[in-house]
Amino acid sequence: MSLGIAVVGAGYWGPNLVRNFRSSDEWDLVAVCDLDEARARKVIGSRSSIEIETSLERLLSRDDIDAVAIATPARTHSTIALAALDAGKHVVVEKPLADRHADAARMVERAKERELVLMTDHTYCYTSAVVRIGELIADGVLGDVLFIDSVRINLGLVQPDVDVFWDLAPHDLSILDHVLPGGLRPQSVAAHGADPLGTGKAYLGYLTMPLPGGAIAHVHVNWLSPTKIRQMVIGGSRRTLVWDDLNPQQRLAVYDRGVDVEADRVAAAISYRLGDMYAPALPEREALASVAAEFAAAITEKRPPRTDGHSGLRVLDVLEASSRSLAAGGAFVELESLERV
Amino acid sequence: MSLGIAVVGAGYWGPNLVRNFRSSDEWDLVAVCDLDEARARKVIGSRSSIEIETSLERLLSRDDIDAVAIATPARTHSTIALAALDAGKHVVVEKPLADRHADAARMVERAKERELVLMTDHTYCYTSAVVRIGELIADGVLGDVLFIDSVRINLGLVQPDVDVFWDLAPHDLSILDHVLPGGLRPQSVAAHGADPLGTGKAYLGYLTMPLPGGAIAHVHVNWLSPTKIRQMVIGGSRRTLVWDDLNPQQRLAVYDRGVDVEADRVAAAISYRLGDMYAPALPEREALASVAAEFAAAITEKRPPRTDGHSGLRVLDVLEASSRSLAAGGAFVELESLERV
Amino acid sequence: MSLGIAVVGAGYWGPNLVRNFRSSDEWDLVAVCDLDEARARKVIGSRSSIEIETSLERLLSRDDIDAVAIATPARTHSTIALAALDAGKHVVVEKPLADRHADAARMVERAKERELVLMTDHTYCYTSAVVRIGELIADGVLGDVLFIDSVRINLGLVQPDVDVFWDLAPHDLSILDHVLPGGLRPQSVAAHGADPLGTGKAYLGYLTMPLPGGAIAHVHVNWLSPTKIRQMVIGGSRRTLVWDDLNPQQRLAVYDRGVDVEADRVAAAISYRLGDMYAPALPEREALASVAAEFAAAITEKRPPRTDGHSGLRVLDVLEASSRSLAAGGAFVELESLERV
Amino acid sequence: MSLGIAVVGAGYWGPNLVRNFRSSDEWDLVAVCDLDEARARKVIGSRSSIEIETSLERLLSRDDIDAVAIATPARTHSTIALAALDAGKHVVVEKPLADRHADAARMVERAKERELVLMTDHTYCYTSAVVRIGELIADGVLGDVLFIDSVRINLGLVQPDVDVFWDLAPHDLSILDHVLPGGLRPQSVAAHGADPLGTGKAYLGYLTMPLPGGAIAHVHVNWLSPTKIRQMVIGGSRRTLVWDDLNPQQRLAVYDRGVDVEADRVAAAISYRLGDMYAPALPEREALASVAAEFAAAITEKRPPRTDGHSGLRVLDVLEASSRSLAAGGAFVELESLERV
Repeated sequence: MSLGIAVVGAGYWGPNLVRNFRSSDEWDLVAVCDLDEARARKVIGSRSSIEIETSLERLLSRDDIDAVAIATPARTHSTIALAALDAGKHVVVEKPLADRHADAARMVERAKERELVLMTDHTYCYTSAVVRIGELIADGVLGDVLFIDSVRINLGLVQPDVDVFWDLAPHDLSILDHVLPGGLRPQSVAAHGADPLGTGKAYLGYLTMPLPGGAIAHVHVNWLSPTKIRQMVIGGSRRTLVWDDLNPQQRLAVYDRGVDVEADRVAAAISYRLGDMYAPALPEREALASVAAEFAAAITEKRPPRTDGHSGLRVLDVLEASSRSLAAGGAFVELESLERV
Repeated sequence: MSLGIAVVGAGYWGPNLVRNFRSSDEWDLVAVCDLDEARARKVIGSRSSIEIETSLERLLSRDDIDAVAIATPARTHSTIALAALDAGKHVVVEKPLADRHADAARMVERAKERELVLMTDHTYCYTSAVVRIGELIADGVLGDVLFIDSVRINLGLVQPDVDVFWDLAPHDLSILDHVLPGGLRPQSVAAHGADPLGTGKAYLGYLTMPLPGGAIAHVHVNWLSPTKIRQMVIGGSRRTLVWDDLNPQQRLAVYDRGVDVEADRVAAAISYRLGDMYAPALPEREALASVAAEFAAAITEKRPPRTDGHSGLRVLDVLEASSRSLAAGGAFVELESLERV
Repeated sequence: MSLGIAVVGAGYWGPNLVRNFRSSDEWDLVAVCDLDEARARKVIGSRSSIEIETSLERLLSRDDIDAVAIATPARTHSTIALAALDAGKHVVVEKPLADRHADAARMVERAKERELVLMTDHTYCYTSAVVRIGELIADGVLGDVLFIDSVRINLGLVQPDVDVFWDLAPHDLSILDHVLPGGLRPQSVAAHGADPLGTGKAYLGYLTMPLPGGAIAHVHVNWLSPTKIRQMVIGGSRRTLVWDDLNPQQRLAVYDRGVDVEADRVAAAISYRLGDMYAPALPEREALASVAAEFAAAITEKRPPRTDGHSGLRVLDVLEASSRSLAAGGAFVELESLERV
Repeated sequence: MSLGIAVVGAGYWGPNLVRNFRSSDEWDLVAVCDLDEARARKVIGSRSSIEIETSLERLLSRDDIDAVAIATPARTHSTIALAALDAGKHVVVEKPLADRHADAARMVERAKERELVLMTDHTYCYTSAVVRIGELIADGVLGDVLFIDSVRINLGLVQPDVDVFWDLAPHDLSILDHVLPGGLRPQSVAAHGADPLGTGKAYLGYLTMPLPGGAIAHVHVNWLSPTKIRQMVIGGSRRTLVWDDLNPQQRLAVYDRGVDVEADRVAAAISYRLGDMYAPALPEREALASVAAEFAAAITEKRPPRTDGHSGLRVLDVLEASSRSLAAGGAFVELESLERV
C-alpha cells in the first residue's frame, strides 16, 4: 500500500521531486500543483494520468493525498505548509524551511499539534557521503572535531530576492547539523560578505562559527567563481577527513595524519602522524530517492524524519544570525536559543 | 665580474639560499655564517673552499663580501640587517622582513640613508606563476579584481614562537602585494583564529580584507590539515583565474566565464558568460634563482628590487593588524598608514 | 506532429531509451515490448498509458508506431530489425548493430530496399565532447592525425557470451569512425588479449590499427581494473587533444604543443612547440536525447542519420577482424572491403 | 671512511650523479671526467676542489678512486666500463647497461672475474613507490599478478640514434624486473611502433609481453604526447594497484576491488568485490641518493646490488627482442635464454 503525494511547485526543484516520488515504491504520485498549468503538464509529460491542479485549496481537499512536497519560493513555504498541515497532510519542504525563523517555528508547532510529519528536504544529508561522514564522527574514527572548512563555489544562479548566504549556505549548514554530534549549535556567527558588482547584496561571503572546545567551522559560499568546488575538510584529533563531492571516484578520504600536542608540555612535545589514507567505497544512490523513502518511513513508523523541522530551524537560526552579522559589519552575533521551540 | 655574498644562518632556509647563490653566474658565494660551525660545514659539504664564519662581526668586516643574505629567526633580522647595512653591505632578508613593523621601518630607512639595496625574499613572487598572474592583471585580461580567495593548508611545521598567521600568511600577503595594482593596501583586516589543541596560539585561521570598490581578499591558513592545498582564485570582472600550485601540469587556468550585471537595471539584466578556459604554458625555473638574479640586478643597476623593503613593510603591516584583530575577538582593525616611511 | 515509437527490450539499456523517447518533443512513446511483462511494466511505472506488448508480431502490426528502438541481446538484433523493416518501421539498434557482419549487411540492404531509416545507436557520437572532437579534426585545428590512443577500463559487467573486445571496443571504434575523416578504415588490425582468470575468453586486451600515412590507432579495453579510465589522446601535426570523459569540468583539452620535424633534414631540425592549452566549454546535454532527435530528423528529412547502418558495419568489420587476429595469436589481419555493401 | 668516486660524462644525466654523490656521506666525489673540460667545470661550480679529468686513462690510473659512475652515450658504456673494471674500479652505469646485449654480457662476465660490483642505474627502482610496489607483491597483498599496464608518455627529447622504445621503455622494463617475482622473464614480446612524422624510427609504440599463467604486461611509450602521463596499473587476483607517479600527494592506491571467478563454474559464478581503497604514506627521498647508498653498500658488503648487471641484461634482452619484432612487422618474438650468462 503506497501513500498518495502531490508535488507543489513545478519550477527549478519540483521536477526532481516529481521524478523521485514517481519512481518510488512507497509513494503514488497523484498530482502536481502549479499556478502555471502548462509548466506542470510539461513536468509530468504525455501518456500520464498524474493529475494537474492549479488550486492549492482544491488539492488539499482531496482524499487520495496523504502528503505534499513543497518546492515553491521560500517566502511562500509557511503559508502553503500551514494550510497543508491544517488539511491533515504530512509535509516535506524544500530548503530553507522558511524565509523567517518565526514562520518556521509556527510550522514546527503546528505539525506537533496535528501529529503530522514535517520534514526539511536537506537533500545532501541523504547522500552516501554525508551519511558516512556522520558515521565516522559518531564512531570516533575522527576523534574530536577540531575544525570544519567548507567551500561551495560555482557560477551561481543569481536569485532575485536572496543573497549568496541564503542560497548556498543552507547546504553546508544542514550538513554540519547532520554530522556534528548534537547538531549545529554554534555559540555565535560572523558573516563577511562582498558585493563587488554593486548589486546591493552579497555575491560571495564567509561564515565563521566558533564551536565548543576551541573548534571552529568556516563556510565559503561564492556565486562568482567559474570553477565548481564543493569541498569540506573535517579535522579531528585522531584523523582528518576530506570530502570532495566533485570527485565521484574518490569522494571521501580519511587521513591518518595530524598533529599531536601533549598538554602542559613545551613546544618540543609536538609530534606528527604521517600515516596512510583510505577512501571508503560508497554506494551510488540518488539522494532524493532516500529523501522520499525516509519521508514515507517517518509517516509509517510515526516518528520524526532524520531531517525534521528542528534541523530546519537550527539552519534558519544561523542564517538569520548571519544576516544580522552582515548588517553589523561582520561582528560576531550570538545565536538565539533554539530551546524556545 | 661577480658579486661576493655570504649567507647568514644555516638552518631551515639557509641551505636553499646557499644552493642558489652557489650556482648563480652573478654571484660568488664567499662564506656561510652560523654560530654552529658544524651545521654550516654540513651545508657547504666537502671539497669546497667556501668559508665558514661563526662571527657576524668578522664576516661583515670582510672586503670580498658585497652583500649578505639573512636566513635567521625573524626576531634577529633587524639587528643583523642593520649591522650589515652599517658595514656597507647590500641585504636580502628571508620573510618576514622583521617581527615588528617598527624594526622593519628602521631597516628601510637605514638602507635608504646608506644607498644600499634592501630586498625582502618574497620567494613566491619570483615563480613563473605569480609573475604571469601579475601580468594578466596589469594587462587587463582579468578586468577589475572582484575577489581573491587564497588557501594554504598543510600539516605545518609548528614553530615555537609564531602562530599560523605569521608563519604562512606572509606568502599569501606578499603574493597579493605583488599582483594587486598599487600593492597590498587593504582598508582593514579581520582575523579569526582557532586553537583547538589548546596550545595558546592559532593553528588555523582566516583573514578577511575589504579592498577598494567592494572587492574582498580572504586568506585561509592552516597547520592542521593532512592534505596540502595551495590554491588561489582571483575573480575579475572579465575573467577569473585559478592558480593551483600543486598541479605542475596546469598551474594557471584562466576562465572566460563570469556574471555580468548591468548597472541600474533589474535582476533580469544579469547574464552569464560560459566561455573557454585556457592554461598558459609556464617556464619551469627555480624561484630562488630568480631572487638571486634580481638581487644582483638591483645592485648593479642601482634600483630597488621588485620585492623591496616597502613590500616587506606592507606585509608586516597586515600581519600586525591581524594580531590586533585576533586579540580583539575578530573585529575589523584599520591599517596604519604606510606613508610614514 | 510527433512520431510514434516502441522500445523493444526492457533490460539494461531499454530503460534509458524509454526515458529519452518519453521526454522527447519529437516522439510519442507508444509501447514497450518485452517477453517479460512485469519487467516492461516496471520500466514505464504507474499512472502511465504507455502500452505493454509481449508479442513482437502484434507490436509490428500496429499502425500508431512509425519506428522501433531495439535494445535486446546482440544475437537477436538482425531478426527483430528485419521483421520491423519488413513491417515498414524505421529502426534504431543498440550497438553493436549485429553479432555478425553478414547479418548486419542484410539489415543495411533491407533498409535501403524499403527506403527506411536504419540507425546504429552509437551513443557516444552524440556527446558534446565527440561532436566537438569531430569539428576540431574537420576544421584542421589538430592538423593531420598522427596517433590515437584510447583507454576504456573499469570493473566490467562480465557478459556471458561476449569477450571484452565485443563489449567495450564498439564504443571506441564508433567514436573513431565518427571523428576520423572518411570514417574508420584501418588497413589491418592486431588484437592481443589476456585471460588471466582462465575463463576461456579475453578479460582485457589491446587493438592496434595502422592508419594511412604512418599514423596508428590503439585501443585498450579492460574489464578487470578497479578504477574507471575513459581517456583518448589524439595527436595531430598541429595540436594534440586529450579527452578525459570522467573529468566533467574539463573533458577536452587542446594542447598547442608538439614536435615539428622538417622533412629531408638531419636530426637537428627537430623543434618543439610548448604553447598554451585551452579547454573548450561544452554544453551539457544527455547524448541519448540527441540520438532520439537525430533519429526523428533523419526520418522527417528522408536522409541517413549521422550514425547509419554503414557506420555500424565498419565497426563490426573491425570487431570481426579482431577476433580473427586473436585466434591467430595476435597477427595483423587485413580488413575485408566494406565496398561489397 | 668514505669511498672515492668519479663521474664520467657531464652531459644530461651526469650533473644529477654529481649532485648526489657529492652530498652522500658514503662517498667522496673526487673527480668529474669529460672530454669537454668547460662542461665538467660548469657542473662542479666554483670554489670546489673536485678535480676535472679529460683523459679516461689518467682517471682510471688514480689510486684515490674506488669506483666510477658512467653517464655517457649508451654505445660507449661497454668500452668505458670494461676499462674501469680492468683498472679495478667498481662500476655503476646509466641505463641501458649497453646498446647491445653481447656487450653487456661481457661487462657482467668481466665484473664477475674481477670480483667487482657492476650496478645498473635503474633509478626508478629506488623510488619509494617502486620499493613499496615490490613489497606489496612479495607480501601477497595483490595476490597473483593478472596484468600490468604501463604508460609513459610525454613530449620527448627526441634522440638522434635511438627510437622511443630504447629511450623510454628501459624505465618500465626495469621496474617490471624489480617488482615481478623472479624478475622480468616474458615468454615473448611483440612491438608495434609508429613513425607518423616519417623520420625513419618509431616515435610512439606498444610492447605486449605474455607472462606465465595467462597474465600480460603491456607498455605504451610515446614521444609525441603533450601531457605527461606516467601511470602503471597492476591488477592482481586479490587487489589492484594504481601508481600515478605525477600525483605526489597520492602516488600509490591499492584497491580492494576485483572480479572473482570460480573455476569450473558457469558465468553466474562471477562475483565482484567493491571494497575500499587505501593510499600508503610514502617517504620522500631522492631516488638517486638511494642509488648512491646501495652502490656503496654493495661494495662494502661484497654483495650484488639490488639492480645488478643481470637486471640490466634482462632489460636489454627484451629491448633487442622488441627491435626484432618491430622489424618483423609486430610478430611475437621469443626471448633468448638469459641463462647463457
